[in-house]
Amino acid sequence: MNKNDALIPLSHSQSIQENFMNLPVEQRRNLFYVLARHDAEELFLNLSAPDQKDIFQVMTLPEQRSWLRLLAPDDAADLIQTFPENKRLELIELLDYDSQQDVLALLAYAEDNAGGLMNPRFIRLRPDVTVDVAIRYLRAQARGPIEMIHYAYVLDNEQRLLGTVSFRDLLLSLPNKLVSEIMAKELIVIHENLDQEEVSREFSRHALPALPVLDAEGHMKGIVTIDDAVDVVEEEATEDMHKIGGLQALTAPYFKVHFLEMIKKRGGWLTVLFISEMFTATAMGFFEKEIEKAVVLALFIPLIISSGGNSGSQASTLIIRAMALGEVKLRDWVRVFGRELLTGLTLGCILGSIGFLRILLWPGRTSLYGEHYLLLGCTVSFSLVGVVLWGTLTGSMLPFILRRCNIDPATASAPFVATLVDVTGIVIYFSVASLFLKGIIL
Amino acid sequence: MNKNDALIPLSHSQSIQENFMNLPVEQRRNLFYVLARHDAEELFLNLSAPDQKDIFQVMTLPEQRSWLRLLAPDDAADLIQTFPENKRLELIELLDYDSQQDVLALLAYAEDNAGGLMNPRFIRLRPDVTVDVAIRYLRAQARGPIEMIHYAYVLDNEQRLLGTVSFRDLLLSLPNKLVSEIMAKELIVIHENLDQEEVSREFSRHALPALPVLDAEGHMKGIVTIDDAVDVVEEEATEDMHKIGGLQALTAPYFKVHFLEMIKKRGGWLTVLFISEMFTATAMGFFEKEIEKAVVLALFIPLIISSGGNSGSQASTLIIRAMALGEVKLRDWVRVFGRELLTGLTLGCILGSIGFLRILLWPGRTSLYGEHYLLLGCTVSFSLVGVVLWGTLTGSMLPFILRRCNIDPATASAPFVATLVDVTGIVIYFSVASLFLKGIIL
Repeated sequence: MNKNDALIPLSHSQSIQENFMNLPVEQRRNLFYVLARHDAEELFLNLSAPDQKDIFQVMTLPEQRSWLRLLAPDDAADLIQTFPENKRLELIELLDYDSQQDVLALLAYAEDNAGGLMNPRFIRLRPDVTVDVAIRYLRAQARGPIEMIHYAYVLDNEQRLLGTVSFRDLLLSLPNKLVSEIMAKELIVIHENLDQEEVSREFSRHALPALPVLDAEGHMKGIVTIDDAVDVVEEEATEDMHKIGGLQALTAPYFKVHFLEMIKKRGGWLTVLFISEMFTATAMGFFEKEIEKAVVLALFIPLIISSGGNSGSQASTLIIRAMALGEVKLRDWVRVFGRELLTGLTLGCILGSIGFLRILLWPGRTSLYGEHYLLLGCTVSFSLVGVVLWGTLTGSMLPFILRRCNIDPATASAPFVATLVDVTGIVIYFSVASLFLKGIIL
Repeated sequence: MNKNDALIPLSHSQSIQENFMNLPVEQRRNLFYVLARHDAEELFLNLSAPDQKDIFQVMTLPEQRSWLRLLAPDDAADLIQTFPENKRLELIELLDYDSQQDVLALLAYAEDNAGGLMNPRFIRLRPDVTVDVAIRYLRAQARGPIEMIHYAYVLDNEQRLLGTVSFRDLLLSLPNKLVSEIMAKELIVIHENLDQEEVSREFSRHALPALPVLDAEGHMKGIVTIDDAVDVVEEEATEDMHKIGGLQALTAPYFKVHFLEMIKKRGGWLTVLFISEMFTATAMGFFEKEIEKAVVLALFIPLIISSGGNSGSQASTLIIRAMALGEVKLRDWVRVFGRELLTGLTLGCILGSIGFLRILLWPGRTSLYGEHYLLLGCTVSFSLVGVVLWGTLTGSMLPFILRRCNIDPATASAPFVATLVDVTGIVIYFSVASLFLKGIIL
């Protein structure tokens, strides 16, 4: 929070929520129960499903009924989904019949597509009524806590979407015009099976507060509102970052993840990486004789393999993010390859030169590196060019290969790329060394 | 895109935009000029500022005037901001007087706070008029392409915000009620200096399509709409990911970044990391004698230091993201330290056991590792426990230290942590080795 905020008093409900979020779970429950009903409702509606659950699960059944019915069907479905399978039906039965149908339909969708995000309740209008009739109809229809509804949807008899009318349009049009005359017919729609990442991209492309969701036959099934898109964008970014960082994506905030769960999500990948990294020991075993003859070669191994790893993780992070944002598509791989070839070569030459100068100008070079320090310098710098180029190409191409195999490109995590490059880096280094130093110190 | 999408025809403007975004720059301009004016406008309004610029900068001045005036002031300011300082005034003069004032005011704000995101145009109402009068007033006032406005803001004579009224409320209320009677007084507001990351967090907390922006005295300055928040969330996540991946954050899509710019953003960090990593060569220089005596020790160096690096980058990624999402605060560092201590120890024991078994059960263990392979196994596995613990603690604490020093925690990139841990990893390894093997093979 910015320090200037102190000058503006937070609104009542804003400060309640602020305080609430800073409390540990038990104290949250206590605070919740001392709030006035209106404040408690305001707070409950603004909580995320896991935070709602913390309070909700210690309530009596009649209380649960009251609070569950407060929620819009999509939010109720989200809350119900936080409970184990066997508890869900019991909770669904607390709802009224209409909501039960809505929630059951929502639970059938995958959580991470448009269908799973959508709210099945929206305001329908017929095209052949006047604005005046529409307004009177809306006055009668709008009841209860309807989420962010500023649009009515104009449907034909088969529930096919013909157009949208904003409340603003209704308000500003002449009362005797027909809905079909004032409705917007240029529709931005999304399909119920569209992945949530694509859904949020549609919102960022079109500045609209809600998008209608259609099934394959063009029937309108519900709306997705933009506030869900914000959450999705954050969620997807977190997932990608966790993967890039080399762990399985956590699905809850840091402190909410159970210790064993944390070990599983981090230990799993760490073990896989560890076992792959064992090949470095095997690879180095092949060069044991060379190391024995020229121990000085061993000194530069960490430097060389880590440079490959670093350039690889830069490249993979860049490409993974560009893919997630839709900036780079699968078919762009040739262009990316060309660019990264040049980039890798340039970066390799920069590091290679620094490495060369490091060895050439080091004060105790003869005592530390022997009389052939110049050749050693060449070995290190040529290896660096090779390893950095190889790391850059591996890091940039791996996301394409993974996506081609329908695996999330973010799996090409920085540590994963680094591990891949480490083993080959050792082979590159010793091959270059034998080129320069064979018959001299090898 | 989901394959089922093919079943629903995209809307006209949706498919135009789809096609447009897939074209290279020159072809985009050609397509733009053949579009009907209405379609071109629709497209232009939905483009990002850099994409608008591509088309805009090759237009004649009268064309530029027409297209710039199409944009809302905040979008016009964004477009103008893509041009160099000396060109901006010329562009501002293309606008009408009111818009000029708005744009100049917006350009004075930092781009990344609420003031820089906000639209200074919103609909004002007085509290003491009736709903009927308000609606007639709105009918007269609402003109031109106003962004996503579904709310009117009720201000007193000093421009202080008293409440908000949605168009829906106006539509559904009795015409003779006063605006002050139907307005919502529980206001969620943001301060003009609030950082954009916090602004987007406010949107994800409260399901509202727009938030009013106030100055320090409580005067209303404009509104920020939720579609800006979606863009901010993506932008901030990209920035963090790039930093975690070990490069300076790019500010444009992958293919739009100039080659030299790319080399600078990547080469800079890569060089810093490379120079730091040189300390590994220095550290290993200290242990040259030990390596000479027991070359077998060198075989496990990459394995050990990379395990430290991997566990460190996991931990730092986790904490950086949790901080960015507000899940972990600066004051939580003790709790995090405790948790990571336990986690690091557990992960270290897992990898240590695997490493121990690897050496113990390897077929050619005596010929490869010598007769003291058991002691070597102990050295490797105890080093692993130490290095993984150290990596985990370094990775998790570094973001706290950086934030404490007012540096972006995302600077604690995976490669940065790995480099830090590599040098200490070597020291840990050889210290443990001398403990187990002194007088035996050392």
